[in-house]
Amino acid sequence: MTALGGLLDGTPALVNVGVDGFAEPPAAHGAEVVRLDWRPPADGDDALGLRLAGLIADERVEAANAEALERMLAVRPHWVDVARAGDVLPALDEERLLLHAGPPIAYADMCGPMRAGVTGAALLEGWADTPEAAERMAAAGEIAFAPCHHCDAVGPMAGIISASMPLIVAEDPATGARAYSNLNEGAGRCLRYGALGDDVMDRLRWMNERLGPSLRAALGELDEPIDLKAITAQALQMGDECHSRNVASSALLTRALAPGLARHTDLGGAEALDFLRTNDYWFLNFSMVASKLGTMAGHGVEHSTVVTTFARNGVTVGIRVSGLGDAWFTAPAAEIDGLYFAGYGPEDANPDIGDSAIAETYGLGGFALAAAPAIVGFVGGTPAEAIRASEDMATITVGRHREYQLPTLGFAGSPVGIDVRKVVDSGLEPVITTGIAHREPGIGQIGAGLTHAPMACFTGALDALAPPLADAA
Amino acid sequence: MTALGGLLDGTPALVNVGVDGFAEPPAAHGAEVVRLDWRPPADGDDALGLRLAGLIADERVEAANAEALERMLAVRPHWVDVARAGDVLPALDEERLLLHAGPPIAYADMCGPMRAGVTGAALLEGWADTPEAAERMAAAGEIAFAPCHHCDAVGPMAGIISASMPLIVAEDPATGARAYSNLNEGAGRCLRYGALGDDVMDRLRWMNERLGPSLRAALGELDEPIDLKAITAQALQMGDECHSRNVASSALLTRALAPGLARHTDLGGAEALDFLRTNDYWFLNFSMVASKLGTMAGHGVEHSTVVTTFARNGVTVGIRVSGLGDAWFTAPAAEIDGLYFAGYGPEDANPDIGDSAIAETYGLGGFALAAAPAIVGFVGGTPAEAIRASEDMATITVGRHREYQLPTLGFAGSPVGIDVRKVVDSGLEPVITTGIAHREPGIGQIGAGLTHAPMACFTGALDALAPPLADAA
Repeated sequence: MTALGGLLDGTPALVNVGVDGFAEPPAAHGAEVVRLDWRPPADGDDALGLRLAGLIADERVEAANAEALERMLAVRPHWVDVARAGDVLPALDEERLLLHAGPPIAYADMCGPMRAGVTGAALLEGWADTPEAAERMAAAGEIAFAPCHHCDAVGPMAGIISASMPLIVAEDPATGARAYSNLNEGAGRCLRYGALGDDVMDRLRWMNERLGPSLRAALGELDEPIDLKAITAQALQMGDECHSRNVASSALLTRALAPGLARHTDLGGAEALDFLRTNDYWFLNFSMVASKLGTMAGHGVEHSTVVTTFARNGVTVGIRVSGLGDAWFTAPAAEIDGLYFAGYGPEDANPDIGDSAIAETYGLGGFALAAAPAIVGFVGGTPAEAIRASEDMATITVGRHREYQLPTLGFAGSPVGIDVRKVVDSGLEPVITTGIAHREPGIGQIGAGLTHAPMACFTGALDALAPPLADAA
Repeated sequence: MTALGGLLDGTPALVNVGVDGFAEPPAAHGAEVVRLDWRPPADGDDALGLRLAGLIADERVEAANAEALERMLAVRPHWVDVARAGDVLPALDEERLLLHAGPPIAYADMCGPMRAGVTGAALLEGWADTPEAAERMAAAGEIAFAPCHHCDAVGPMAGIISASMPLIVAEDPATGARAYSNLNEGAGRCLRYGALGDDVMDRLRWMNERLGPSLRAALGELDEPIDLKAITAQALQMGDECHSRNVASSALLTRALAPGLARHTDLGGAEALDFLRTNDYWFLNFSMVASKLGTMAGHGVEHSTVVTTFARNGVTVGIRVSGLGDAWFTAPAAEIDGLYFAGYGPEDANPDIGDSAIAETYGLGGFALAAAPAIVGFVGGTPAEAIRASEDMATITVGRHREYQLPTLGFAGSPVGIDVRKVVDSGLEPVITTGIAHREPGIGQIGAGLTHAPMACFTGALDALAPPLADAA
């Protein structure tokens, strides 16, 4: 369980931990020395290390984590409906509420891309006639805000969901639990990246009026709901990691919907197929809603240290933990190590943003990076690093998926169930594949890359799991 | 160039070639011994070995092969039309001609699945009212036969093409060269596997009357033709090897066609999308026609030893070679090492059959097996063996693809351009991924697996490239 655990299986003649120089004298005398690149658990914080050791030794935690993981893996995310957001979540209409990505945040504190999302949604809903009027309304407190996650929903990047938007409805048939996401706008200039303009607004209106209704009708043509887990599992065999690469899953899902859309050209089916024909991100929101339904099932298991929410609002990153109720544990949002579109650079980039890290929370994205060697050119890196990422993430998770398998790791299951203890113990922060938004409102995507969930989220959660003695007293 | 070539880059202390015992005394005295699993070129046939050495030393051959490969790689296979076979190839109507897979063969010598294909085509064309009548016609010489390859066409398995069938028309825009293939019937009971029955015939009639016309109309909706090389390159990043696994390419192509089909439901567009929704083999015939167009371009280069045709009729396997004109070099068709559907085994299997090895001839299928780790469970084998197959094939080819890259080999190009000299020199037979047909007519597919092109085809071609002294005299 500690960083030394795996080594105890072998029988080296001598193990040197830490500073290399210690090993030199015995090595000079011919002793076999295994050099271990080790650092003390909890980054050398003795008090934290003691509390961590207690949690690691706690059999109730092991049992609770196994239970949480089993519940997560048992979920079968079926896509059962496309519904108007306000019909599914009445508060959106009744309270002039907008949902946003990440942990709770006030309008005044929101980053540029999220403020742009608010403006676009207020225009879409007809609450304001101009961007300036929308901004004044929001600043005056005339719009309510809540995290998507507080409504069992998820939205990529800014993650703004408003009443008129069509939502994907996913359901676990065994429990009836439901989760929601908005529909993907494609690549290029999108509201989720903070782009604004007639092109962006026209597409959103078309999605409300034509895409949503034609999809609902096409779904209704099918004999049975679409099994999002089956598509995800298949896509992992086809180069997707189902966060930043969704080519295979998008094509498979479009192929499945095409006959029904063809039979509803009156509702917009042919236009929908024009849109889906080139949307390689189409499945992202389905991957997210399936992952949300999976992780929700693991929430609320007493003593469990499994992360069940992991989301960013562009200012802070927050996690929620199965055994810790509704509390968010937050830290400043991380920078992204990535590749930029021509004309942009790190100085233009907004920090990490979006609910899409729900994919990582459910063993996809950075955790399944070994499945997607073709992605590395897009986010910067090598195929070997992609495999290494998945192997690293297996050291901070409770177990592995059964259906989600990684071909380049001999079809091993993707690592799933981030364990707060293991993150703090190992010092390995969860890796995320993500897009990069411009920090100013109105511009949009400027790149893509890799980032990590900040350690402070996990040490914060650890404080709650095993309070410091001073606090406990 | 010889089997020893690659080793000369290193500097082992001692190289043992062949029988292991020779290396034991020096090894016992501490010498570093590299054991080489070597066998003499041309399988120890001295006369053949001498002729081979002459060919290997012939600079005209090297230059000719480079030229043939460059012509092959320069081809851009565009899907430009769907046309009635008899309109494209008038002899099908005028001479009551049927095309078949593989090298030339008389009706009396055809295997069961191919005879079933002839029967089905005769019924489809209305030449006969019953299977028995069709068989009598064929046996009486009232139907003419020719290889697909003699008409710049390719057909999988039995490969029967008759006048009323819709053909894929692929064209290289730079040269105007065209190649043809029939449309894929999907999995299950299909004429190409020798299945017969109302279900098989109904589908073929529907393909003639609805699928072909709706595809032609959908293709006409597009601003530009579909670039089959681009789809193939993308699919190799997505787990396809584009012979026995075509899931990604089929989904991508269906997605590209879907809007046009949705706009032609009157012609059968929605039914076509129903059919394409579950047809994971849809792209196979496109992969074949693209490969045919590519290999055709490399044919007819004087002195070239590059294989430009490689096809099986279920009784014999034949190759044609760039510098050897229209001659076929044949050998008995090989058995297949594969997995069988429940209730069937090797005793039921027809030997290797079909024009689909044109994929291997163009660096796909077994040559690109490293791209398709998920296929190995289907044909029997491990991911490591899949990688090994692509590495092995690189030793018998002239070069590598530029666009067709293999992610698990660090995005190296797939090996392409089978060199008769290298096959004979190395003793490595080209590997093929293929389906298995029942040997009796009327039944259909019973499994899938791996097989090899027989060495005798290549030694036969070598005899023509460098005639034995007795012949030359």
